[in-house]
Amino acid sequence: REERITLAHGAGGKATRTLVEAVFVDAFRNPVLEQLEDGAAVSVGGARLAFTTDSFVVSPLFFPGGDIGDLAVNGTVNDLAMCGARPLHLSVGVILEEGFPVADLQRIAASMARAAAAAGVEIVTGDTKVVRRGQADGCFLTTAGIGVRERDVTLGAATVRPGDAVLVSGPIGDHGVTVMLARGELDIEADVVSDTAPMHGLAAALLDAAGDGARVLRDATRGGVATILNEIAGAAGVGVVVDEAAVPVREEVLGASELLGIDPLYVACEGRLVAVVDAARAAAALAALRAHPLGAGAALIGHVADDPPGLVLLRTAFGGTRIVDLLVGDPLPRIC
Amino acid sequence: REERITLAHGAGGKATRTLVEAVFVDAFRNPVLEQLEDGAAVSVGGARLAFTTDSFVVSPLFFPGGDIGDLAVNGTVNDLAMCGARPLHLSVGVILEEGFPVADLQRIAASMARAAAAAGVEIVTGDTKVVRRGQADGCFLTTAGIGVRERDVTLGAATVRPGDAVLVSGPIGDHGVTVMLARGELDIEADVVSDTAPMHGLAAALLDAAGDGARVLRDATRGGVATILNEIAGAAGVGVVVDEAAVPVREEVLGASELLGIDPLYVACEGRLVAVVDAARAAAALAALRAHPLGAGAALIGHVADDPPGLVLLRTAFGGTRIVDLLVGDPLPRIC
Ligand SMILES: Nc1ncnc2c1ncn2[C@@H]1O[C@H](COP(=O)(O)OP(=O)(O)OP(=O)(O)O)[C@@H](O)[C@H]1O
Ligand SMILES: Nc1ncnc2c1ncn2[C@@H]1O[C@H](COP(=O)(O)OP(=O)(O)OP(=O)(O)O)[C@@H](O)[C@H]1O
Ligand SMILES: [Mg+2]
Ligand SMILES: [Mg+2]
Ligand SMILES: [Mg+2]
Ligand SMILES: [Mg+2]
Ligand SMILES: [Mg+2]
Ligand SMILES: [Mg+2]
Repeated sequence: REERITLAHGAGGKATRTLVEAVFVDAFRNPVLEQLEDGAAVSVGGARLAFTTDSFVVSPLFFPGGDIGDLAVNGTVNDLAMCGARPLHLSVGVILEEGFPVADLQRIAASMARAAAAAGVEIVTGDTKVVRRGQADGCFLTTAGIGVRERDVTLGAATVRPGDAVLVSGPIGDHGVTVMLARGELDIEADVVSDTAPMHGLAAALLDAAGDGARVLRDATRGGVATILNEIAGAAGVGVVVDEAAVPVREEVLGASELLGIDPLYVACEGRLVAVVDAARAAAALAALRAHPLGAGAALIGHVADDPPGLVLLRTAFGGTRIVDLLVGDPLPRIC
Repeated sequence: REERITLAHGAGGKATRTLVEAVFVDAFRNPVLEQLEDGAAVSVGGARLAFTTDSFVVSPLFFPGGDIGDLAVNGTVNDLAMCGARPLHLSVGVILEEGFPVADLQRIAASMARAAAAAGVEIVTGDTKVVRRGQADGCFLTTAGIGVRERDVTLGAATVRPGDAVLVSGPIGDHGVTVMLARGELDIEADVVSDTAPMHGLAAALLDAAGDGARVLRDATRGGVATILNEIAGAAGVGVVVDEAAVPVREEVLGASELLGIDPLYVACEGRLVAVVDAARAAAALAALRAHPLGAGAALIGHVADDPPGLVLLRTAFGGTRIVDLLVGDPLPRIC
């Protein structure tokens, strides 16, 4: 048993999951939290709500295609959208390091405002704390959000069953690779920008098309598509079989991932979702994704099977099959 | 115009207010946020909600009477309670520094769980991020919370009017002084513990007694009672006149404050509220506070006047009168 926090505890993979279960779920224990979905499904005064939060510690703060501000807004909008909710109200807690440039803060706030307007949400409350130089790294944000669950559909990893189809809404790994390259520590150049985007509209289109055939939606953030599929396989006690050749990955991302020594299946996206739907609805769902600007590159990447329960299998391009585990370690720290 | 963030921007006083208005309110601009109350009053699917957030960067993490965990839960419970809401669901974003002891995290989570149970709320969703050694200081928490506004009363600083009575629920400054002394940087000892506590029950008792005579509730956190009264005077365009001799302060807090060189009126509490009520309801409201375990030391400390608009006047023990401004600078950094 580890006695100290390591970077892996923040990577969104195996170590994060173990820590969250052993420390937080064990202490807070309640049926809503125990679902471990993207957000909490709660009811208040007769209203069916979704409630979620994420902290953002991305480095650098500004990167091609986005910055910590729109990332924080889109991230919370997306976790609400993955609950099948319409995102409405956001909060933001800001932790600043003494000496941080006010101009950068203004740029971040403006980016948050633009992202909120684009997603149709309002930032209605916040908090601002400052710590001494060296006690934080520039600017950390924590957004929380409330959405309303207006649809009569039960989403959740546990509802997935053998025969279901697995879709992804577009090419994977753009965000993670972009942020790694933006750090400039590696001598790699690639023409790639973050995919950060609000996916509530995309999710709504998919849910309209899939109807009660929709099982679960997940935004493929930390740990990437591979980690999410493992979570689904584990929660539903099913096998997930993925066809490697069907997984959309940009040439540039593939190349950069090789140089970074990481499989794109584990690289975070911030504007891509994985959806599991009843096979009978797969074609309609895929068409709905592709008809949306954010889903033009959507693909059917695999299916759910009885066996092996709890595992993800990859059919490789060469005809072989290998097990794809949860993300181990932290190859891409502070990606969000 | 300052170009870099200073500790004062996080102290909850004049600089915080200026930064929040110039950067965040200006960028996010919407009628709910612009109220600048303890939380946002929103309506979702017919339900009247309150929504709030606070980040916590207190140092040290453990101090007499509490720790960052119960502080974070109580802080968010209290901001909801100050909106007249019944607190229901909390989220928590955790930012950890690599190397942080897992045992300390468990202690913090257990403390959060106890505080949540005591306040009757559930922590239903969360997030966990890790940054490298030296990029944060141990553990930062950001809680957000949802409550339901079941009462038919409009609370807000802008509703305050001349003639109203100003109450405080107990002795002030315990929390701030406790945390400063717990750092051990000062060679002062004092027999004082943090007042951190969930005030939803206390607030409900007060609101029951004050009925539609209740104007505004505020928990006296960063910037202390003086800063809150300034916010109220500013928002309502009234004068607030405080009788120094009536303000409850423990002997130990008074002594330590003198050594720290700070007026207890500016020292943060985490379990004390300021209430403004119609003078006709003041006696009933005060009695209700005093009848509650958290309000045994409640007192009527002043009243609202026409003049001077926007200012707080202190009638000193020696019969003089002086203006009490917003908190300037940051005499007590990382108090919450
Ligand atoms: N500190 C915590 N306390 C309580 N629950 C937590 C905590 N950290 C994570 N969780 C829960 O664990 C689950 C997984 O969280 P995670 O942050 O990995 O999901 P996510 O937000 O969808 O991904 P990402 O953070 O990469 O965007 C969620 O149900 C979340 O509520
Ligand atoms: N970064 C921010 N973005 C948007 N609004 C903010 C931000 N920081 C503070 N605010 C708003 O400013 C007002 C005052 O915030 P403040 O944090 O001082 O209140 P509080 O939570 O009651 O006090 P404390 O944080 O000391 O407990 C609130 O209405 C809050 O929503
Ligand atoms: Mg998610
Ligand atoms: Mg997320
Ligand atoms: Mg606050
Ligand atoms: Mg408050
Ligand atoms: Mg507060
Ligand atoms: Mg998260």
